[in-house]
Amino acid sequence: MSGFTLTNLKEEVEDSAVKFGLSPDLESHFAREALETDQLGVSYQRLAPNFRAPFGHRHGQQEEIYVVLGGGGRAKLEDEIVELKPLDALRVAPETTRQFEAGPEGLELLAFGGGAGGLQDAEVVDGWWADE
Amino acid sequence: MSGFTLTNLKEEVEDSAVKFGLSPDLESHFAREALETDQLGVSYQRLAPNFRAPFGHRHGQQEEIYVVLGGGGRAKLEDEIVELKPLDALRVAPETTRQFEAGPEGLELLAFGGGAGGLQDAEVVDGWWADE
Repeated sequence: MSGFTLTNLKEEVEDSAVKFGLSPDLESHFAREALETDQLGVSYQRLAPNFRAPFGHRHGQQEEIYVVLGGGGRAKLEDEIVELKPLDALRVAPETTRQFEAGPEGLELLAFGGGAGGLQDAEVVDGWWADE
Repeated sequence: MSGFTLTNLKEEVEDSAVKFGLSPDLESHFAREALETDQLGVSYQRLAPNFRAPFGHRHGQQEEIYVVLGGGGRAKLEDEIVELKPLDALRVAPETTRQFEAGPEGLELLAFGGGAGGLQDAEVVDGWWADE
């Protein structure tokens, strides 16, 4: 493996939300493959103003850190809801179900995962954040 | 360990550059402890306009990903120099020595590390980027 890999999350990494029919409410660029990572995954996520992600998810083994880049919104973590603002960092344990929604300015964030991970470690939880 | 931890990288996590005498040219908030992470580390770094970090570093085991949040600049990776712009993501292998410098707008970035890591896994390389 080479010593480094450089890519642009927004311009060079595919937006997976397009093929899942979630564009333009959601933008999701998963860069694990583009970056040829060995230990880590990173993705760039953008939720349109007032959009709530259509599902929650949890992991088998992968701890994740989310960092808010712009806008704001909320995250639901099991039975708690937290407010998010720029440069907030949120660590989420693997087994904790989490789901995001954007505030009126939209929500732009990075998601990082370590250890055994990737999408195959994730379990989608449909209809999990149904109420306010 | 609880299911999640929320902190603000800039407002709630100590700026280590102050105690190392590198403020205000550099701002460095290392959040591994504040986030009580199990597998990951994250830090927020801001270099003042045209400031070059005073040392390079490499790691024993920790792969890292840097994501540019704002401004721009350059990274020197062994004998290569790359230009950096917002939302560029840069994976760096543990043994690759890397050092950053800001362009005229400054350079704001996040650094993520996985696996066995933390500052005790890092080796500082003084005077490593001495020429242009």
